[in-house]
Order: sequence, then structure tokens, then C-alpha cells
Amino acid sequence: MKITKDLYQGSLALLTDFYQLTMAYAYWKSGKAEETAVFNLFFRKNPFHGGYTLAAGLDYVIDYCRNFAFDERDLGYLREMKNKDGSPTFETAFLEYLQNMKFSCDIDAVEEGTVVFPHSPIIKVTGPLLQCQLLETPLLNIINFQTLIATKASRIVFAAKGDAVLEFGLRRAQGIDGALAASRASYIGGCSATSNVMAGKLFDIPVSGTHAHSWIMAFSTEIAAFEAYAAAFPDKCVFLVDTYDTVNGIKNAIQVGKQLRETGNEMEGVRIDSGDLAYFSNVARKMLDEAGFPNAKVVASNDLDEHIIASLKSQEATIDTWGIGTKLVTAYDQPALGAVYKLAAIKSEDGQWEPKIKISQQTIKINIPGNQQVIRYSKHDKVVADMICLEGEDIDKETFVIIDPVDPTKRKKIFTKGMDQEILLKPIFRNGEMIYKIPDIHTIRERAKTNLSHFDKAHKRLVNPHTYPVGLEESLYQLRTDLVFKMKNYNGE
Amino acid sequence: MKITKDLYQGSLALLTDFYQLTMAYAYWKSGKAEETAVFNLFFRKNPFHGGYTLAAGLDYVIDYCRNFAFDERDLGYLREMKNKDGSPTFETAFLEYLQNMKFSCDIDAVEEGTVVFPHSPIIKVTGPLLQCQLLETPLLNIINFQTLIATKASRIVFAAKGDAVLEFGLRRAQGIDGALAASRASYIGGCSATSNVMAGKLFDIPVSGTHAHSWIMAFSTEIAAFEAYAAAFPDKCVFLVDTYDTVNGIKNAIQVGKQLRETGNEMEGVRIDSGDLAYFSNVARKMLDEAGFPNAKVVASNDLDEHIIASLKSQEATIDTWGIGTKLVTAYDQPALGAVYKLAAIKSEDGQWEPKIKISQQTIKINIPGNQQVIRYSKHDKVVADMICLEGEDIDKETFVIIDPVDPTKRKKIFTKGMDQEILLKPIFRNGEMIYKIPDIHTIRERAKTNLSHFDKAHKRLVNPHTYPVGLEESLYQLRTDLVFKMKNYNGE
Repeated sequence: MKITKDLYQGSLALLTDFYQLTMAYAYWKSGKAEETAVFNLFFRKNPFHGGYTLAAGLDYVIDYCRNFAFDERDLGYLREMKNKDGSPTFETAFLEYLQNMKFSCDIDAVEEGTVVFPHSPIIKVTGPLLQCQLLETPLLNIINFQTLIATKASRIVFAAKGDAVLEFGLRRAQGIDGALAASRASYIGGCSATSNVMAGKLFDIPVSGTHAHSWIMAFSTEIAAFEAYAAAFPDKCVFLVDTYDTVNGIKNAIQVGKQLRETGNEMEGVRIDSGDLAYFSNVARKMLDEAGFPNAKVVASNDLDEHIIASLKSQEATIDTWGIGTKLVTAYDQPALGAVYKLAAIKSEDGQWEPKIKISQQTIKINIPGNQQVIRYSKHDKVVADMICLEGEDIDKETFVIIDPVDPTKRKKIFTKGMDQEILLKPIFRNGEMIYKIPDIHTIRERAKTNLSHFDKAHKRLVNPHTYPVGLEESLYQLRTDLVFKMKNYNGE
Repeated sequence: MKITKDLYQGSLALLTDFYQLTMAYAYWKSGKAEETAVFNLFFRKNPFHGGYTLAAGLDYVIDYCRNFAFDERDLGYLREMKNKDGSPTFETAFLEYLQNMKFSCDIDAVEEGTVVFPHSPIIKVTGPLLQCQLLETPLLNIINFQTLIATKASRIVFAAKGDAVLEFGLRRAQGIDGALAASRASYIGGCSATSNVMAGKLFDIPVSGTHAHSWIMAFSTEIAAFEAYAAAFPDKCVFLVDTYDTVNGIKNAIQVGKQLRETGNEMEGVRIDSGDLAYFSNVARKMLDEAGFPNAKVVASNDLDEHIIASLKSQEATIDTWGIGTKLVTAYDQPALGAVYKLAAIKSEDGQWEPKIKISQQTIKINIPGNQQVIRYSKHDKVVADMICLEGEDIDKETFVIIDPVDPTKRKKIFTKGMDQEILLKPIFRNGEMIYKIPDIHTIRERAKTNLSHFDKAHKRLVNPHTYPVGLEESLYQLRTDLVFKMKNYNGE
């Protein structure tokens, strides 16, 4: 196996669960492959016990869909699959169908960097049942992870209260693009730079980094190591001071900082990667100030996350820049978002959407049926509520009642007069053609920042946030309830 | 950005932290780039509070090293980097050095599927300081994740006590090869198959899967859906029975199972994906047995891990096959291994290894200096202890004392007579040339199984396992202690 040659150089059409292919085959066999379906991608709970989620990953999804085709190696692999009696698993005519298949779905999606909430569709795929089904797994893989990490990054940036946050998780990330996609999503979520050079090159993200403990250890003394580094990078010296003894390391950094100043350069700062960061950051600040380096920054790292940053802030740690690795790129305290992709409706022969529902003993797991849209109401740049309604609902009505999808006693009346309304699901593909202009990553990062600024900090606080109101428009709520009763009766309950 | 075109089609040389490149440049500037160094990749704690770790990822590392070269796009990206004054960050001569660089390291590594322990090197890289440094981040990225997942998979397989375990985490994995590499490592750890078709194609892993809830919802009745599936796959029907009502779903599965039998086919089983798995598996078993389907299997899924499997086993759940997703592929309860890569020695001008150490306030973070090897002693196929010693140590001596690297009062005497000894770090590259024959994945999986069988179940139990003895050979322990004292004095403590 060659990661560099084989892994990513073919198509990604087989990046899906095998059951999507068996279902595709069975849809095809039963004449249902080209029935028109609508599927929604959504999640059921904000991650990290937080009050919101930040959508990311659409750019990957767009690319996946634009290049969605089975190549000869994919088909060859499927052709070799056998039943127990040795006959081929898939008929040749079906493989030809896959070979000739042209991506022809409509896709509507929330733009990257938009704040989103449980139960609302982030992506809606409308098109031939077979194609919608094959897309389930790759879309979930992409959106689940990037949305999770963008959200985590935004929480860390929130805790850092304006300080720069650097992402350097590559070494601990889950796989190669577990790292690359995390760097991308972290930047969207508000990080200032990444250590991952390949992410910098591919995604146009600023990169940063100076030196490691091994640099110090490769020299006979710490001073010699600092001096050699300063000779190579006189205008970007952040000295790592804790290889042997932190206080002595700061002394040595100051000594080399003074030498640098004689050559007309300023040391950028010191980095502390271990020990009591509250204590040592105060020591470093005091020593640097007293030595005449009030502008030298104190950079801290060592298994940090939003909660440790908040704690260090409350202890008056004098840290200017935060380096975050493992806890960010793996979303350590909740490493999966748990978004799902559910069939919501199938078009009947008369062209009407026939809503579809899955019953569950857990109310939270009952999906929302029908072809949906999400409207965000806001006033003076402050958001008020999100309404999930059927596509085609008259959103200019004067009042709406929205009902919480899990607890029907939670209701909210929306008076639309004087309010701004934003339709959250934007058209991305129509009949397989992209009709969306992809923004650059800096625009996406700006959108995230602006979007978050429209939400009260009560929704953004790290612990026990206030719940933002999201509900089903009354008639959609009624449709869903009727359907649940109908399905339960149908099954004789 | 095109994941399908750009992400993986160039070189992976920039898949490293930026500080590796700044250090590389500064090594080159200070004339140290080609000093010979030895770095060790190791971890400090078994994951999941477990008693062992299962090494995986070497195949990726080998491929990475064999293709380790900067291409024109990489160099172009570095060429554009600027200092604050607008001058280029990297001198042209350095970029030429990178361009002409040929991978020339020695690599010794523990083979994939080997049981390993904290502090022992899993990979040892010996070669030019600059090259060793650049390899740090990609090697950690690869080994950290695959080793973590192989270990997790082996724990789940252990809990399943011989039942088949299927991995289907693609939709929740962290990125595209967060999924692919997880499927690979899960198979090495003992899973029977994956749902990830691309992993099946690339790595020669069996794939499995039948149908989802959406399949049922796409038909007017559950019976119609089961019948249509049976028509497409008469000899591989595992019916998902919990879309509307589990008991009714089992009834419908039995009905279609009887129809299948009339055509000479046997239903494989039913899958339950929600609700009380202990209860419903018993109900399913009883209903299937009474209906004349004693061989039909009960497949269970829904956020399972080794602890839930153990609990279900203790409740006498009648589950034959376990489908595991999120908790396995993200290593949910500990999503990062935390392996590190540390400079251990640099060759002095007289050709002697000069051992290197990093001091830390936490004893567990003080590295082991010197050019090391690891010996595993065993007797009658039962392992006894692992010894970390300096390369060149006379391992045929009659007795050894090994000392725990963290707690020096934990010592063990090894009498080598009648014991088998295995040198764990095997030669993989010499002077940049691969001299190792890469085994196929099935051989690796077999090795893992055999390796694990040599360890007592006390080391493998899920909670509070017995600690397997791993220690430093006495003289290496002494060398390390002396060096710590020397460095502390040097810094005036």
C-alpha cells in the first residue's frame, strides 16, 4: 500500500459504507433508483455541552460532489465481489449504470462559518434516491469532523478573549487529513495560524513555529542554541525556555535578546511548554519587563483547551499567545459530533413530496419529515430565533409559532414585523451543476466571526449556556405528530 | 481547494510542523544539518487505562520515507515566505539543499501487530539531524493514530470473546483517512471486516453491510422493503428490524426469511440498532429459534465499545455479531495516544554516541538517553519482561536487573537461561534503502493475535490490568541518572 501513490489518487466514490452500495443495487433492482428523494444532514446536540455549533466542511463536500464518479479501479473492485455460490454480487448492468451515472442532485446548504443548531438541516440533498444514498457516508464524514473542530476552535478563541490562538495539532491528529481538515476548520473557527505547513500551502492559512526542545538538546548549552537560532531568524525569535530549567531559560533568552537588539532586531518572546503556566508566565512577564522587553510575548502550550485557558485567565496568567494541539484537533472531550443523514421525503408519482419518518423510543431520535427550509429571524443584528418550516411556507406572515422538536411545551411566538429574515439553506447545486461561488477561507473565517457576534454571550459561554430558540413551524410540527401516530398505528401499537 | 485533485497528489514532505523547517534551516545555517543523531518514538502511558498497546502504522511510515522528497510546489511555497523586512525567510541555497536531499536515515522499528509498552522505542530513526527532525511530525501523526486504534480494536475484540466485530465508523471518523487508517488499524487489532469500501479496496480488508433505516422508509411497508432487499441479495439478508417497532420488525424478518427459505436461501440474521440491546437480543433469539431459524444471527450496534459489550455479555445478551463505529474509530474515551519523538543521542566527532536528555519537573517526562534497543524475554511462549538497553549490550549475559524508568524501587531480576529473547526493533531502512519485507495485512493481523496470546489475560483485562514489567538495564539506568544530575548542576540547581 502506498499512501502517497494509491490512497488518494483514484476517485473517492468508494469512500462510502458498503451498505450504501448494496442498497443502491437493490434500489436499482427494484426500480426505485431514480425516484426523487430528499435527505437532510443534521445533528441532535451541540457538542461540548455548548450553546451553538459552527458549520464547516462545505468546500470539501462541493469538491466531492463535483468529482463524484466511479473509475475503472472502483468498478473492477466491485466486479470481483462474489456471492456465497461464487456468482458476482453485482450484475454487470448495474456496474454499467454506476459507470454512466452523472451526479444530478440539488444541494442546499448552510454556508461555512454559519452558526447552526440541533435538528436544523445543515445540508439538504435532493435527487435520485440512489445518488442521495451513496452520498450519505462521505458527506457525514466531512461535515461531522470539520463542524466539530470549527466549533471547538471558536470556543477556545472565545476563552482566549482576543489573544492569538495557534493550532499545532498535526502530530496528535487522527490521520493525515484528520490533521489537514482540522487545521482548516480551526482557522475558520478563529485560530490565527497553524503549524501544519501542508495545510498552509493547500488552504492559504498562515503558518507559524520556531523551535523544539530537540533544538536546545542538539547544542552543548542552551545559550549556544538560542544564539544559533537567532543567527538564522534574527527577526522571529520565540525562545523555548523550559528544556532544563524555566527561570534559567528565561535568563538565557533575555541575554540573547539583548545581543539581538544590538544588531537592530527585537526578540518576539519566550515559550513555556510545561510546569505551572500561571506561575511561570508571571515570572517570565516580570523578568522580561524588568530587562527592558515589555513587548516580548509570553507564549504558552501544554495540553491546553478552553477550560484551562479560562482557568489561567482567572488566575491572571500573563500569557499573550496560546498554542493548542491535541485537545483542539481531536476535539478531545467529545471527538465526534454525531450528525446523521435522514430520508425526509420521496416524491410521489403526482409530483408531491410524501413525508417520511423513522420512529424511535427516544423522542430526540424521531426525524423531521418533509422538504424543509430554515429561516433565521433577527433584529438590529441580534438573532431572535430559527424556524424550521416546509419549503414554500409563506415566511412573510406577521406571526409564527415555533415549537421545540423535543419538548412541545417549549413554544415561541415570532412577530416578523421589523425583523430581518435569512434563509439559511442556500442553493449550491442544481441538477448536478454548481451554482454557488465558493468564498475564500478568509471570507469564511470573517463570516464565522460576524455570525458569532450576532449571538449573545449567554449562548457562547463555556458552561451551562442559554438555549437559543429553534423550533418547528406549527403546521410542520402537526404534520410530524400526525405521521408518528399514523406509523405507530400502522404497526399496531 | 480540491480534495480530490490537490490534497494528496503532490508530495507529503510539507506534512510537518513549520518549526521542523525553521530548525532545519537553522541546523543548516549553523553547520549541524548532517551531524548524526538518533531519535526515539515512544509513548508514556498505555491508552484507555489498559495494560498494553498494539503497534500499528509502520507500513504508512515506510511509504512516507520512501517518497520523502520536496517537489517543485513545496519549494515554491517555501520560496515565497518572507521575513518582516520583505526578504525571503529561507536562503535559496537552503532550498536547493532540500531539493537535492535524498532520504538517507536508518530506521529500526517494532513490527506492526507487536504488543508494546510505555517508554520503549517503537521507532528509532538514525541519520542526519536535519532529516530526523523533519520526520518527527509525520511519523508521530501516523503512529500515534494507528497504534491507538489497533489497541482500541483489540480491546473490543477481547470483550467480544470470539464473536465477530465489524468496524463501521467511516461517517464519524476524523477526516477521510481518519477513517481509512482507522479501518486498517481496526482490522489489525482483530476486527473481521469494515463497512468502508475504499478501505476494503486499498487495504484488502473484507467489507460488510446490508441496509439502513432509509431503505425501509423508502418503501410503503417494512415487509415490502425486506422483500425487495431479499430479491436483490437472497443469500445475504441481515434485516434491520428497528425502524418502526423492533418486535414487529423481527416478525416481518421471519416472514420474509420463510419466503427466502422456499427459494433455497437462508436469512443471515437481524440487526438491532437502538433500544435495550440486552432485552431485544433475547427477544430476537427466542423468536428466531421458535420460528425455526436457530442459525440466524443477531447483530447489534448503537454506540458500543468494549465496556458496553462486556456489560451486555454479563447480562446474557444473545448477540452474535457486534457493529462498532464512533467509539472505535475515534477512540472516543481517549482520542490521542500522546506518543512523542525525542532526541536520544548525537554522534560526536570521534564517532561515539553522546547521550542527550531533557529535564522535566515530571519524572515521567524525562527521556531515556542513548542509542537503544529493546529485548523481550519469554519462556514457553509466555512473555516475562522487556528490557530497554543500549545498542551493543551483551544480551546473552546470565542475569539482568531491569529498573522501572519512573519508579526506581520497582526492579526485576531476569535469569536468561532457558529463555527466548526477541530483539524488538528490527532493521527497516539502512542508509535510506529499505531492507525490510513488508508483510501483508493478514499476516500483521495474525501477528497481533499471536502476540496478544503470549500475554496473560491479567495484562489484557479492561479495568485495572496487571502491569507488565518493562525496565532499563542497570547501566542504562545509571547513565540516565548521572546525566540528569549533570544537567541539573549545569543549570545551577
